[in-house]
Amino acid sequence: MKKAIFFLLNDYADLEGAYLSSQLSQDKQCYVKTASVDSKVVSIGGFRTLVDYSISKIPSDTDLLVLIGGNSWDINNLALFNTIKDRLDNNKPVAAICGAVDYLERNGLLTGFRHTGNSNYLWKNFDKYQNDNDFLEEQSTTDRCLVTANGTAPIEFTKQVLNMINFKNDSAVDKDMNLYKLGFYKYCDKYGNPFA
Amino acid sequence: MKKAIFFLLNDYADLEGAYLSSQLSQDKQCYVKTASVDSKVVSIGGFRTLVDYSISKIPSDTDLLVLIGGNSWDINNLALFNTIKDRLDNNKPVAAICGAVDYLERNGLLTGFRHTGNSNYLWKNFDKYQNDNDFLEEQSTTDRCLVTANGTAPIEFTKQVLNMINFKNDSAVDKDMNLYKLGFYKYCDKYGNPFA
Repeated sequence: MKKAIFFLLNDYADLEGAYLSSQLSQDKQCYVKTASVDSKVVSIGGFRTLVDYSISKIPSDTDLLVLIGGNSWDINNLALFNTIKDRLDNNKPVAAICGAVDYLERNGLLTGFRHTGNSNYLWKNFDKYQNDNDFLEEQSTTDRCLVTANGTAPIEFTKQVLNMINFKNDSAVDKDMNLYKLGFYKYCDKYGNPFA
Repeated sequence: MKKAIFFLLNDYADLEGAYLSSQLSQDKQCYVKTASVDSKVVSIGGFRTLVDYSISKIPSDTDLLVLIGGNSWDINNLALFNTIKDRLDNNKPVAAICGAVDYLERNGLLTGFRHTGNSNYLWKNFDKYQNDNDFLEEQSTTDRCLVTANGTAPIEFTKQVLNMINFKNDSAVDKDMNLYKLGFYKYCDKYGNPFA
């Protein structure tokens, strides 16, 4: 059983975790739970979410920690920082998108990892960000146990995270995600009609 | 102030409402609330959602009713049926995606409307579906006050719903949604860097 925890703050971006959580949850070998610093959060889209875990109490055998972007990542929380740092130091999968990558950058957690994110334009002002030369201009980047992505890349992010954790073989993941990337009719042109 | 209500059932599809709810909520003239037949639902992706309204108690001046797909649309609920029927009969905007379109079809609520959906292959078995010739093989379809879409089309669905309710001018909606359709770097190639 693979355990994935999605960490969310108030004003989290609904679409950034939507594809990934759905892909994971629909596999009987996986389950998805949420974590935060509050017991309830509200998404950017106005959906009220009941949180499963306080970040300080997530299971120690969590297989994947996903940090979903949004408008509240100017947070200082020691349990959050320590949880992420411990995972990165011990090669345990972490995935961060959009505002969550800004958090990693401001806190020196991207050091040693090739990465991307929304933009490194403003990051240069932060002392703890010392590897600007590792920023790649691409939708999503994987380096060992860390996937990073910009906020327009929920599908590429999902693909790379699923590949990082060896969810299926990479071409099966590509095919599944192309249903959304291409849309139903172009997908049928490429692969045939899955319902025929 | 525009009021949008997103109707959700257990096992609702996270990604199908994510873009639309976010676009609406980020406009100060709009607000998004959720409705269901239960006070809490869990998404396909495993997110627990606290619901704002019982479907029988949504505000009478709701501007837009959005029906999000998922795995529980084999529902029989008179308040839901009457709410949708009243809106369609009175030219009040309704948007339905994926499994929610199956519900409209099974209940005879697509009659008189050009529409699309996941597939009309199985629908022909239902007596109340009498306008198979109005099914269009496209990602999303608008006919007067009704937008329908298949489950791989959350972005096209969002565009058409925003255009139906005159959210912005159509080209501004296209541009906003192309940020997600193209992704950041291809968007910059087409429109220039929005952060530069």
